[in-house]
Amino acid sequence: MFSVTVRDHMMIAHSFRGEVFGPAQRLHGATFVVDATFRRAGLDADGIVVDIGRATDRLRAVLGELTYRNLDDEPAFAGVNTTTEVLARTVADRLAEAAHAGDLGEGARGLAGITVTLHESHVAWASYERAL
Amino acid sequence: MFSVTVRDHMMIAHSFRGEVFGPAQRLHGATFVVDATFRRAGLDADGIVVDIGRATDRLRAVLGELTYRNLDDEPAFAGVNTTTEVLARTVADRLAEAAHAGDLGEGARGLAGITVTLHESHVAWASYERAL
Amino acid sequence: MFSVTVRDHMMIAHSFRGEVFGPAQRLHGATFVVDATFRRAGLDADGIVVDIGRATDRLRAVLGELTYRNLDDEPAFAGVNTTTEVLARTVADRLAEAAHAGDLGEGARGLAGITVTLHESHVAWASYERAL
Amino acid sequence: MFSVTVRDHMMIAHSFRGEVFGPAQRLHGATFVVDATFRRAGLDADGIVVDIGRATDRLRAVLGELTYRNLDDEPAFAGVNTTTEVLARTVADRLAEAAHAGDLGEGARGLAGITVTLHESHVAWASYERAL
Amino acid sequence: MFSVTVRDHMMIAHSFRGEVFGPAQRLHGATFVVDATFRRAGLDADGIVVDIGRATDRLRAVLGELTYRNLDDEPAFAGVNTTTEVLARTVADRLAEAAHAGDLGEGARGLAGITVTLHESHVAWASYERAL
Amino acid sequence: MFSVTVRDHMMIAHSFRGEVFGPAQRLHGATFVVDATFRRAGLDADGIVVDIGRATDRLRAVLGELTYRNLDDEPAFAGVNTTTEVLARTVADRLAEAAHAGDLGEGARGLAGITVTLHESHVAWASYERAL
Repeated sequence: MFSVTVRDHMMIAHSFRGEVFGPAQRLHGATFVVDATFRRAGLDADGIVVDIGRATDRLRAVLGELTYRNLDDEPAFAGVNTTTEVLARTVADRLAEAAHAGDLGEGARGLAGITVTLHESHVAWASYERAL
Repeated sequence: MFSVTVRDHMMIAHSFRGEVFGPAQRLHGATFVVDATFRRAGLDADGIVVDIGRATDRLRAVLGELTYRNLDDEPAFAGVNTTTEVLARTVADRLAEAAHAGDLGEGARGLAGITVTLHESHVAWASYERAL
Repeated sequence: MFSVTVRDHMMIAHSFRGEVFGPAQRLHGATFVVDATFRRAGLDADGIVVDIGRATDRLRAVLGELTYRNLDDEPAFAGVNTTTEVLARTVADRLAEAAHAGDLGEGARGLAGITVTLHESHVAWASYERAL
Repeated sequence: MFSVTVRDHMMIAHSFRGEVFGPAQRLHGATFVVDATFRRAGLDADGIVVDIGRATDRLRAVLGELTYRNLDDEPAFAGVNTTTEVLARTVADRLAEAAHAGDLGEGARGLAGITVTLHESHVAWASYERAL
Repeated sequence: MFSVTVRDHMMIAHSFRGEVFGPAQRLHGATFVVDATFRRAGLDADGIVVDIGRATDRLRAVLGELTYRNLDDEPAFAGVNTTTEVLARTVADRLAEAAHAGDLGEGARGLAGITVTLHESHVAWASYERAL
Repeated sequence: MFSVTVRDHMMIAHSFRGEVFGPAQRLHGATFVVDATFRRAGLDADGIVVDIGRATDRLRAVLGELTYRNLDDEPAFAGVNTTTEVLARTVADRLAEAAHAGDLGEGARGLAGITVTLHESHVAWASYERAL
């Protein structure tokens, strides 16, 4: 199995509902350093998993819909805690849609899966892994 | 599949028995930067894999039983080489016990597995992965 | 010249005023991984620059006054852009006050200076360096 | 499942054939920071996955056949794009040959698999995972 | 003293002349992860050292003149070993020219100095520091 | 001003005397990831600060005298706390002796200074800077 990973980041504000979150129930924020991993059983004729330029551009586009925003005001997350886990799934699902729509190139149709990891600090991160 | 990882560290002394270890048969030591990963198929009602505050506290407690010690003198490791691999399993097993005992919260009962990685330097690390 | 550095982090929301900030004029947030460096010409009788336990605790206390907050609502920053540079100075100045007040131990009175670096992402950081 | 990883690097020149590569069709180069991970279900009698000294030496030997070279001139890669993915497989396959030949020690015959990750920059890396 | 640093990278091929370089006399290559640090005694009216967007764009432009090339063929480096040290100075000097030309904004005219660090691997890097 | 840095590591056991050290008064250990920085006003005829191969070898030799040992038993440290600060100075002073003795090559006689940083964990490090 092969994989290729590209990294970018987003900077958002949000708050959480639930006693388990303690002081993070207050409005605060985070930089998420985001790693998007594309998996594939074999390589295409060019010897790659995915066009890394397209993967980088698409990750930037997906994060561009989230960054520099207060996620508490985003309709897409109404009634949902935008935890690191939830955001990892959101990014992975939107990349998966892009792959299915052909936005990662024709070769990306052979992808087996996507994993997205969001680093919220130097001591904590979360991942979501899905098939394609 | 989701996962959440928290990082902490411990600083221990130890020595190894066996020619394969070369100069590491002498009493020496290591800083282990420890990553504890908790895996779960779905998220709980709060949108999380595990209460990250509890996970952090529990990892600190487990490492607190090992750090600032000479592991050669610890009864728990009598007759055992405290290699990075063995210590990764020790930390993972103790976190698993904590999960089973409810010390990571009720939600943690839904965890699928735990992986622990110990970084012994910038050029070497070891992991142990287990089901819960 | 000797130095000792300890690392911690904070997670805040804020917005900026000024066209130069582009989309960062919107309410957003950041994780700042914070490095506090203490400098000293010589070592004390124990062979250290500063009691690293006290330095770590004091840094945590200073960051505890800022983390999990919307800095736009903090009186201390009224009328001020809480840029990475400004926050680096704030943290450094508060650590300097702590040193002068004896909160870093008597030995810390020999400190020559403090530098604070705030990492806002994997591709950007800012520092403020001052004498003590 | 246990794993042990060792890190080293190589510095090579190469070019790619195919429009998908854009400016990377020109002769350029890369530092690849290489992580070789050895997996094993259980530990041997010494409490290790593999002799880390031998693993380090063998990784260095494998990278020594590639580093400080223009890969466009290497017969082993004639007609092949030496993408990060392809090079990850090359390194993994050569380490697997070494394991089979006994060059990683007798204990290494119990290895379940090898994963090799090549970091081409701070924002991109690729992996190849195989059974042994 | 304040500073702001932005990070980007370039991927080049080159060779060195001189016995001191050993195998690096052969055509090979490198990824350089590049940190550009801008220093300034005080902050401008917006509370910043430099417009970080412009600094990022300018660094990208400077690296864009070097990346995906064989530096042995670049007239700018005729008769010069393109060592990590030399390239750090090249990048710093080109950023200094940009600052003097106003390409980093009017505020950047108050900059005191620039430091550029090129990381050639996880175990080696070089810096060049200059006044403005 | 130019600089070149090389990185290596050592793994030692030790204990500290003095109440300020708390639990670190017990025998424990550390991995120190060691960065040795060589500074020089200008470059030599080859375009370098120092022969990086020799610098790497010499750092390895200096660390080889310390690693895989219990520093409490080393005569060189009798009556001295082997704090991170003290060890940074020890490594810097031994590299300075090597430079003076010509072990870093004739070109190294032009070095202006050396800085050594020892990382004891992902959240703490210490440096010692000296002239040559």
